[in-house]
Formats: sequence, C-alpha cells, structure tokens
Amino acid sequence: MNIKMMGRFIAQIIAVEAVFVIPALLISVGYAEGPAIRAFLITIGIMLALAGLLYGLCRKAGKLFGAREGFACVGLSWIVMSLLGALPFVLCGQVKGYVNALFEIVSGFTTTGSSVISDVESLYRGILYWRSFSHWIGGMGVLVFLLAIVPGGKGAGFTMHLLRAESPGPDVGKLVPKMRQTAMILYVIYIVLTIINFLFLLAGNMNWLLALCTAFGTAGTGGFGVFNNSIAGASPYLQNVTTVFMFLFGINFSCYYLLLMGRLRSVWKDTELRMYVGLAVACVIALVVCIRPLYGSLGETVRHGAFQVSSIMTTTGYVTTDFDLWPSIAKAILVLLMIVGACAGSTGGGFKCIRVLLLFKILKRNIRQILNPQKVQVIRCNGKVVDEKVVSNINAYLAAYMIIVVLTTLVLSLDGFSLETNLSAALATFNNIGPGLGAVGPTCTFAGYSVLSKLVMILAMLAGRLEIFPILVLFSRSTWSRK
Amino acid sequence: MNIKMMGRFIAQIIAVEAVFVIPALLISVGYAEGPAIRAFLITIGIMLALAGLLYGLCRKAGKLFGAREGFACVGLSWIVMSLLGALPFVLCGQVKGYVNALFEIVSGFTTTGSSVISDVESLYRGILYWRSFSHWIGGMGVLVFLLAIVPGGKGAGFTMHLLRAESPGPDVGKLVPKMRQTAMILYVIYIVLTIINFLFLLAGNMNWLLALCTAFGTAGTGGFGVFNNSIAGASPYLQNVTTVFMFLFGINFSCYYLLLMGRLRSVWKDTELRMYVGLAVACVIALVVCIRPLYGSLGETVRHGAFQVSSIMTTTGYVTTDFDLWPSIAKAILVLLMIVGACAGSTGGGFKCIRVLLLFKILKRNIRQILNPQKVQVIRCNGKVVDEKVVSNINAYLAAYMIIVVLTTLVLSLDGFSLETNLSAALATFNNIGPGLGAVGPTCTFAGYSVLSKLVMILAMLAGRLEIFPILVLFSRSTWSRK
Repeated sequence: MNIKMMGRFIAQIIAVEAVFVIPALLISVGYAEGPAIRAFLITIGIMLALAGLLYGLCRKAGKLFGAREGFACVGLSWIVMSLLGALPFVLCGQVKGYVNALFEIVSGFTTTGSSVISDVESLYRGILYWRSFSHWIGGMGVLVFLLAIVPGGKGAGFTMHLLRAESPGPDVGKLVPKMRQTAMILYVIYIVLTIINFLFLLAGNMNWLLALCTAFGTAGTGGFGVFNNSIAGASPYLQNVTTVFMFLFGINFSCYYLLLMGRLRSVWKDTELRMYVGLAVACVIALVVCIRPLYGSLGETVRHGAFQVSSIMTTTGYVTTDFDLWPSIAKAILVLLMIVGACAGSTGGGFKCIRVLLLFKILKRNIRQILNPQKVQVIRCNGKVVDEKVVSNINAYLAAYMIIVVLTTLVLSLDGFSLETNLSAALATFNNIGPGLGAVGPTCTFAGYSVLSKLVMILAMLAGRLEIFPILVLFSRSTWSRK
Repeated sequence: MNIKMMGRFIAQIIAVEAVFVIPALLISVGYAEGPAIRAFLITIGIMLALAGLLYGLCRKAGKLFGAREGFACVGLSWIVMSLLGALPFVLCGQVKGYVNALFEIVSGFTTTGSSVISDVESLYRGILYWRSFSHWIGGMGVLVFLLAIVPGGKGAGFTMHLLRAESPGPDVGKLVPKMRQTAMILYVIYIVLTIINFLFLLAGNMNWLLALCTAFGTAGTGGFGVFNNSIAGASPYLQNVTTVFMFLFGINFSCYYLLLMGRLRSVWKDTELRMYVGLAVACVIALVVCIRPLYGSLGETVRHGAFQVSSIMTTTGYVTTDFDLWPSIAKAILVLLMIVGACAGSTGGGFKCIRVLLLFKILKRNIRQILNPQKVQVIRCNGKVVDEKVVSNINAYLAAYMIIVVLTTLVLSLDGFSLETNLSAALATFNNIGPGLGAVGPTCTFAGYSVLSKLVMILAMLAGRLEIFPILVLFSRSTWSRK
C-alpha cells in the first residue's frame, strides 16, 4: 500500500473542497449572515491547514499505484471530505451535534437527500447553498472533477482505477481513449444540463438562489429541498420542469455524448435506456390508476404520479405529495422503483437498471444451462457478449447489496420503529434516495434515530454511492498490508 | 421433450399418492366421520382412475430422459399432486372454495404451514391427519420416496436429475454411489427420527393421533398445528421436545449418515453445521435479552426464545407465543432467520445456511480480486474447492430469490395490507415458513387474501420448496419444444 501517494492525493481533494466552500462563504457575506461567515472561514482554514500538512508529510511519494490504492483512495477521500464538509453545519450552530451534521453532509455528497433538519427555510442562505451544492459535486464525483481539471501524469492505470471506483454502474464506459478527456466531457455535459435546468426554473419566477439550489439537487439526483415541504408548494410548472430534469439526469451520460456525436441509432437501441423509459412509463400508468381517487383532476394525478416515479426511480427524493398516505400497492411500486434505481453512468443511485436487466439474463442463462447442460451459454447485451467478469461482479454486488440491506435494517430495528420504517430507511439511505415510508416518510426527518443508527446509515449512504466495494475494501485487512 | 415418459412417471406418482390417502381414510372410518369417508373414497377413486388412464396413454414411452425432463417432471408432479391432494378438503365440506383447499394442501406438501383454516380443532380427524401427513411426505419429497421403493432400471442419469431437482441445497451429496440407495438411507433416517419424536411426544401424555400429526409437522418442518393456538397451549415439556426436534430436522441429513458411519470428525468440522448452530445460539441469546421483560421467569423467556428461533430458522412455523407483539428488533431477528433458513439437505426451507456462507465467501473473493486483479481466486468450503458451477448456480438462485420475493410482495400489495404484512407473507410462503407478521401473524390466517394473491402464494410456495428452477423451467418455451 502506497500510503504517501494516497496522502498526497487526499490533500489535493481537501484543497479542492476548500475552494468549493468559497461560493457559500460569499453568499453568506452577501446576506450578512455573521455566524455562517465565521463557520465557513474556520472550515476553510482547517481544510487548507490540513491539506498543507498532509501534502508536506507525503511529499516523497513513489509512483506505484494499483487497484488497491485506487479503491481505498476513493473510499478514504469521501470519508475525509464528509468529516470536513460537516463542519459548517455545527460551527454555525444550526445543526446540533456533530453526528447529525455528518449525517446531513454525507446525505448531501452521496446525493441521498435524507435530512435531520426539519426547518429548512430558516437556514442561513450560505448553509442552504453548501447543503445543496454537496449534491451537485457528489452526483458526478469530486474525484472525477479532480481528474478533469488536474493535468495528467498520474498514468492511465491510476485514473482508470479511480474512475472505476467512483462511477456508478457495473462497467466504466470510456467515451474517448483518454480518461482525463472522458472526465471532462462528462462534466461539461453535466454543467450544461444543470444550467438549462436552472434557466427553466428561473423562467418559472423562482428566486435565483433557490432555483440554483433546486437545480443542484435535481442534477445530482440528491433531493435536499429548499422549502420545508420539499417542492410540494411550488407551482405545477416548476414541479413538471423538475420531473423532466430528474428523469434526464437519471439517464446514462454516455447517451448524451452519443447524441452530440450524432449517433442517434445507438441511443435509440440502448437496452438499458429502453428499460428505464419503459419501466417509468408503466409505473406512472399503474400509479395513476391506483391514486386517481385521491386527487381532483386527472391532470393533477398524472403530475403527482409522474413526479414521484421520476423522483424515486432516479433516487432524487423530492416530493410533491405525501406518498406515505397512498394505498399499499402504490407504495409497493415505489419500493420496487427504490430498489431498481436509475441508469448506470448517471448521477442516480439504486441497483441500476442495467444490473436488473443482466440479473434477468443471468437467470435465463441458468435455465438454459439446466435444459442443455452441455452447451456453453453466453450473455448478450446491446448485441455484445457480456464479459464473465462483469457477470461475476454483478453477482457479488447483489450479494453485498442483500447483506447490507438486511444488516442495516437489523441495526435500525434497535430503535423500535416498525419494520416498514426500518426497511424503507435502509433502502432510502443505501440506495441514496432520501425519504422512506412510515416514520421516515416524506413529511418526516431521520432525526428520530439514535446515534448508532445514524452512523450505520452514514456508512450505508457511502457504500451505496460508491457501489459498496470502495468502502468494503477499507475493512479488508489485506488492503492495509505492507506488501 | 419425452412427454410419454413423463406421463408414465406422473401416473406412478398419482398412484403412490392414492396409497397415501388410505391411512387418512381408515382414521376417518375409525372416528365414523361420514363426510370425510366419502371425500377420501371419491379422491382415491379419481386418483386411481387418472393414474390408470395416464399410464395407459403413455405406455409406449422411449428411454431418453435428460435434465430437461427431470426438472419438468418434478415441477409437474408437485402441481398434479397438489391439485388432487386438495380434493378431500373441499369434498368433505370443511374448506370453502377449491383455491383455499389448494392453498392448504400446497402449504402442506411444501412444508410451509401457512393456513386458511382458523378452527383446526373442529376438523375431521382424517382430514387433520391428511393435512399433517402432507408435511411429512413433502418434507423429504415424494419423488425421493418413489425412487427409494421402486426398483431401478431408470438409469442413473434419470434418478440423478430428479433427486437434484427435488432436494434442497446447492449441490446433491451422494451418500453412496447408487442414487436409489441414497434415497433409501435418507428415508430410513427420516422415519427413525420421526418415530423417536413421536415417542417423546407420547411420553408427554399427548393423544396418539395428535402426537403423530405434530411429529409429522415437526419432521417435515411444516408447521400445521393440531390446536387452534398452534402449540402454545401444550405443556412446556412438549414445547421443548418440539424445539429440539425441529432443530434436528433442520440439519443436513448426510450429517446423520456420517454419524452412523462413525465419522464424528467430519460432522464436527462441517462448516454449515457450525454456522447453523452458532447462528441459532446467538439469536436465542439476543432474543432472550430483547424479550426478557415480556415474560415472568428467565426459564419461560428462554423457552419461548429458543422455540421461536428453532421454529422460524428451520421454517417450521409452530408458535408458542404471539411474536408479532415482540419489539421491533426481535421481529427483525426473526425476519433475518426467515431469510437464512435451515441447512441444505434437511427438510427445512429458506435460502439455506450454506448458500449464505458461500455468498459471504463470494463477496470476499470479489474483494480479493479487486485488490489483486491478476491472481485467480478460488472459493473453499469444508477444505474443498467449490466448483464454479455451484457458485454460478447460487448467484442465479439469489437473483431468482430477490425477483420472486419482490414480485410476490408487489402482487400481494394489491389487497391493501401493510408492507410489513405483505413482505412477511411473501417471505413466509416462499421460504416455506408459515406465519408472517401483522395481518398474517401467528394468531391470524391467510384467508383474508384475494384469490389472485393466494394463487401467487401457491406458486411461491412451490417455487420455494423445489428451489425455484423446477417451477421456472415449466415457464420456459424451450422446455416444451419437440427437439
């Protein structure tokens, strides 16, 4: 394990984070929010000092950097980023207790959107900005950002391992041969889409800061609201804009790249995209049938149905209505969408459509193999044979997924809430969705859970965002062995 | 597909089932239960007529018999057995509606123990016997029974495929080279253990018929009770005897064979057995801590804790107390045990300890592979390398497991019960446990669900007992193709 190299890398990450805090500081200065200004200044000071110290200590780093370091680096960076990013919340005095602040910022970075704050509207504007911005940077990944802006020289293996560990989905699609360029393209698409979303919100007469924060939450598929009732009080126009953009941010970003390159046919034939759109449409129709009696007009029913499907499926977590009051079948459909999630290579979380698709194909292959034991059977997707390594990774991922959900639910049960509450809390945090059902439903917060439960959910959110292995690797002894 | 060969085989199964109905008929004759006698006679008549007809139609059967036929045969036999076995319930008039009767007998054969009958004590004694006997024959498998008694000539491949499809667990352990002898050994152990259990119950002053039925339910890890409150009203002695025997029937039967052969060391070192015992002990201790305040003495608390752990883990489903009233953490532990289940090669259901164990090993291997991508990593269990085919089967099994549980829960949600009720009902039926939580808790029945839900649960129970693939294979087009 090349500890020094990792230290230097993490020092860079912390420095980047310090730069990210500056806009929040400026907003607080603009609104003359004394305690918030002090909090941001102290935070930036601590970050810069720590980054300098770490960089100084780890100056003489070797070059060797493999998969082990890549995965551990991603896991560690995210933990350090969260530990530091939580500071403004406690220092300004608006969140009580460091664990609550840590929960909030991890929920932000991982684009979960589960909150312990009930009165969002009374937050300092700078703090509100920092909270929502964490969604935006967490959505595409801060390491990917660093790769995009820092000039190369780290070697292709290094960047590849980092990107693989931080990007969602079973396989990293290189858009262009060079990793750094891939990272840049991804961020450019991300920024442009966010700006368009922001402009659409402005056109709906939203305050610029609230529009920006809402766009951040949508782009990162995060879900921290800027109003106490999430987005339920906003106009139907703003809700519909958000429905559309949440859905767009749940699509694999390489589809946008292919669109820009004029390869419409490849996009049209993408199996995952088809499943994503098909499942969304089917669920909206099913929901509209189920919840029709609850709302005045068909238009309103469709608006709520489509919004919640888009929000839950992309694991954003904005709400326009309290779906905890919906009939059981409607809630069950939402739980199904919670599990499935968005497309790989998007900012959305969950198990990912492509993995669900491949699971069905794995199952079909097994049946074929039972029927014809002699024949070697391969799995195809998008016309190509799927590598057996990807298959084996998906299987391990499913195993880890099951184990983590079950164990998280078990620990949460210590606090005495119902099974529905605990299971949905485990799914909502691990899948980076945000709201759950019952006591953690759309109108409630996660503040009622114990410190232990919050720590477990913090780990679950991180494991969910980084797709389990970068976090699991940190717990493996062999990661830390000298050899 | 060799349809005629399958027809002849199913004809044999039906004939065997007709023979199994005779003791139930005799009991009804002994108790002078007019309607039950009539019901059994009609049932036997229908069975024999159908068996004869089918045998006559399929007399000229070829020899070719592969995996395809084996799996389809097992799935079909179980369905036919259930369709016919449900007849006495409706014909005697004590169960209203054929779907309810089918639910009850499938719940019996699959050793689930979920019931739609609330007043068990008023059942005709013959019907009660038939209901409990279905647990016993379903536990070890009627096809295994047939293999054990019918002289060979079917070829090793044929019996191997059948045994593989009907036996629980990821891999069929041949105890002795000949399959027929393996089947016989299994049944002898099964019968002897059942008799010992029966004698222990008799020693506790239980009525002989009730003791026999209780022993059937315990041996098959089924769970149909003979009293309206399951076994809660029985003496502590009877409850403790049942605790011990449920646990014993959850152990891989090859362990008993090895014990008889004097290979104590192999049994002692068996990884699955260690996990099974360790998990059970850990859960009993945890439960006792959680539920201590609910009961008078420590002894009573341990009795209830141990009973419920043994009952749920082996997927029997007897209850001594209403665990739906237990605190959330205790209920979460029970749900965990519901999922894990008993040992492979036992009469218990669930995911099976060995599979959970191997899942953890698959996960560990994946982490090792991330850290050292160059090295080929194998999975070891009991000192032996696990075949990659077994690994891939477990993965497909997990995928199927997840998909079936989620889809079953989704359909059950149509009936409006809570998520807790529906999820636990899906787990309780698919894992062949019996009682769930909430509206299908230990004091309730499954009668409240709609016909559609009951049909889905019937399929789930069958899929759970036969470990998914023999049922899934029936839905595959290529199973039925001529070639």
